[in-house]
Amino acid sequence: MTKGVTKQSVDFAKWYTDVVKKAELADYGPVKGTMIIRPYGYSIWENIKSAADTMFKETGHVNAYFPMFIPESFMKKEAQHVEGFAPECAVVTHGGGKKLDEPLYIRPTSETIIWAAYKKWINSYRDLPLLINQWANVVRWEMRTRLFLRTTEFLWQEGHTAHSTAKEAEEEALQMIDVYRKLAEDVLAIPVYVGPKTDAEKFAGAVTTYAIEAMMKDKKALQAGTSHYLGQNFAKAFDVTFLNQNNVQEYVYATSWGVSTRLIGGLILSHGDDKGLILPPKVAPFQVVIIPIWRGDEAKTGVMEKVEQLTAELKVKNIRFFVDDNEQMSPGWKFHQWEMKGAPIRIEIGPKDVEKNQVVLARRDKQGKEFLPFEKAGQRVFELVDIIQKELFENAKKFRDENTIHVETYEELKKVIDNGGFAKGFWAGDGEAEEKIQKETKATIRCIPFDQKDGKGKCLLTGKPADKIAIFAKSY
Amino acid sequence: MTKGVTKQSVDFAKWYTDVVKKAELADYGPVKGTMIIRPYGYSIWENIKSAADTMFKETGHVNAYFPMFIPESFMKKEAQHVEGFAPECAVVTHGGGKKLDEPLYIRPTSETIIWAAYKKWINSYRDLPLLINQWANVVRWEMRTRLFLRTTEFLWQEGHTAHSTAKEAEEEALQMIDVYRKLAEDVLAIPVYVGPKTDAEKFAGAVTTYAIEAMMKDKKALQAGTSHYLGQNFAKAFDVTFLNQNNVQEYVYATSWGVSTRLIGGLILSHGDDKGLILPPKVAPFQVVIIPIWRGDEAKTGVMEKVEQLTAELKVKNIRFFVDDNEQMSPGWKFHQWEMKGAPIRIEIGPKDVEKNQVVLARRDKQGKEFLPFEKAGQRVFELVDIIQKELFENAKKFRDENTIHVETYEELKKVIDNGGFAKGFWAGDGEAEEKIQKETKATIRCIPFDQKDGKGKCLLTGKPADKIAIFAKSY
Repeated sequence: MTKGVTKQSVDFAKWYTDVVKKAELADYGPVKGTMIIRPYGYSIWENIKSAADTMFKETGHVNAYFPMFIPESFMKKEAQHVEGFAPECAVVTHGGGKKLDEPLYIRPTSETIIWAAYKKWINSYRDLPLLINQWANVVRWEMRTRLFLRTTEFLWQEGHTAHSTAKEAEEEALQMIDVYRKLAEDVLAIPVYVGPKTDAEKFAGAVTTYAIEAMMKDKKALQAGTSHYLGQNFAKAFDVTFLNQNNVQEYVYATSWGVSTRLIGGLILSHGDDKGLILPPKVAPFQVVIIPIWRGDEAKTGVMEKVEQLTAELKVKNIRFFVDDNEQMSPGWKFHQWEMKGAPIRIEIGPKDVEKNQVVLARRDKQGKEFLPFEKAGQRVFELVDIIQKELFENAKKFRDENTIHVETYEELKKVIDNGGFAKGFWAGDGEAEEKIQKETKATIRCIPFDQKDGKGKCLLTGKPADKIAIFAKSY
Repeated sequence: MTKGVTKQSVDFAKWYTDVVKKAELADYGPVKGTMIIRPYGYSIWENIKSAADTMFKETGHVNAYFPMFIPESFMKKEAQHVEGFAPECAVVTHGGGKKLDEPLYIRPTSETIIWAAYKKWINSYRDLPLLINQWANVVRWEMRTRLFLRTTEFLWQEGHTAHSTAKEAEEEALQMIDVYRKLAEDVLAIPVYVGPKTDAEKFAGAVTTYAIEAMMKDKKALQAGTSHYLGQNFAKAFDVTFLNQNNVQEYVYATSWGVSTRLIGGLILSHGDDKGLILPPKVAPFQVVIIPIWRGDEAKTGVMEKVEQLTAELKVKNIRFFVDDNEQMSPGWKFHQWEMKGAPIRIEIGPKDVEKNQVVLARRDKQGKEFLPFEKAGQRVFELVDIIQKELFENAKKFRDENTIHVETYEELKKVIDNGGFAKGFWAGDGEAEEKIQKETKATIRCIPFDQKDGKGKCLLTGKPADKIAIFAKSY
């Protein structure tokens, strides 16, 4: 089942699919573009979800659940939104054996149904802010799909907040893109560029879209999360007003923000290698896998005693562990299997180790083995969980920084994009200029990063004075 | 917003809807039969989910996610299943702006799509058992809907397990109905009768369906969870075989089991009163609500100091609390509001209490107030959380037992059903006999309880010898 994967250098796209399938993260569903998230993949999602949900609650948000059926008439209320989303919707036309009077769209995102509800709930400034998130499945009918990265149905969270001032809503949108930055960098160990999208790339219905953009190991960009300041667009479309503190009716200000199971794709593409997946300890289903080795019952007793002693200590230390004592598989097969599945740490305990009162420890992210006195094993695992998390991030950041090249001219940009990598350079172009670049190089502006240290310069395309650097890349 | 609810004695159905809306648990969605679960209601669901998920994992299950789109051809593979479910499905006929070649059913339950996947994953007895659960939304096109109790879309979990022997699968189905019993009784404080359904009432595709059945305050029954032994029905429909230990190909044995957001309806109907909701502490979003009372800033400082002292202690004790310091609402309004929302415990602290170094404590489930020395407040809350949980269960059990009447004849049964209550009596009838009773009394057999203490007797309808008691009731 876990014969090796295609090498990254041979066929990166095939390597990716091999890892997803052989690490038992996901499988294709029967309907084109759908995905089954298998238990090992879902456990990663549970860890991501739990970390994100905690951050949302710490920033004052609460969860709710809205229906997935959106009446066709709702979808059509916000002009840009319907244009952006209606063409990729799945539509229910029959229910309970009958044709429906009005077709129902399955949510591609929930702004419309949520703002229809907010109209009922918001009357006065006293009802604001409303800070609601939902964990849900959404459907977007995609032509070219890839497991986790782009599937017809996917799991995500979508925050939808309502505010009494533009300033407060803008601050919320900025706060949430920073929450996503932390989720990506501190939990997934994926460094990201953070900043607004250009108008050409923003969400259908947004005033401003902020994004976190990561570099994958093939040097392509992955948009890993977005946060939108929606202004009063949806409030106007759904006629949601409130009585402000000066007793004047005003339209409500909005944000929305989301991350999805796509993040699991980002994890694989950021950290994986030719042996398979490499998981950051914070999201790994098992931070350490213990493989007891023995022949004969006598040896087994001694080994399993040690294993139990160690797991008792790991439990106290809140380490997620798995003891792979399956007797039908060889130790070698198990080593291979858990490398494929990206377990951060592996510990072997055999009769010789019992004799020497030691364990053998191997890190997934590094070559070599450590031979540790048995008493130190638990503490070493506890330390390594943090160390590996940090080093995975640092390695990914080093890789990204080395492959983000400053360009002064369009020719330089083309070269960078051709060779693979992110091109960053001064930009004062418009949507048309962006389109020209996309057409000629397949690269788009990923974001205008908040982090602008380069002062002023000349637009790489037009030569006009420019005070902002933009980041260009081919993307997933 | 929180003016009182209709009295239970005046219009029980209206009382229920009033509570759901005024406690801000849920609201109607725009599509008929759909429901918005509001943050307060969703927080209850999160607590139920977390308790259930822990129990599932403790019994060896893992979570996964399967697509919600089921090809029409899959639905048709198991004859009883399609007959039972196809008429109440929502059907997607268009996607991405085009008519689909094959209509897609939105899952009413996931046996078919999951067993199609199991076919790929199961080859040998080494692959068994497969113990998978999923948390998901499902759709059943219902004619008569009621918030939480019966909605077109609802949230649930569905376990789907695969086994190498009938015995093991039967034990799994029994284990899971007992997990549900514990969830209902120990977490929701809802006593339940547990046992198999009759053939007439079982799941479409099951060999045996086990149910937990609860009595609501209007003395009607609520089916609160079911666990099905599916035999080889789905394995045969999807051709899922495995090589057993004797090297023989055999069809796989299956179970499935589920509970849903309906449980929230059960909570309301089991514990609520004319002041609104009453929540068991284990699922209450806030186990205690603290209401500081003051006029003037000086008084405020003293009161809020005490509040902070108390909440610091509650945090250490892992108590979920909320401080309602909203200055726009009066204490009286807040008392009323938190009674409506069913918070188990309320604590008031005003300037006089600060002076006397005391707090005022009120239980939602009992009349009267306790005046406690400040130092004892935290500990008292800690104790009350368990006491209230236990007493709510005991009261509900007393009510149910008092209203479960032993009947010897059909006349007696009719009388019990007419007056309201559960009728239990010896039963040796068949499906036809059941249908007659349902037609004439609107009562159905809720289950044949495992707990059979009455020895042998005569069937209440036919007079034939019978060795089992059945429970009859009108139901939700």
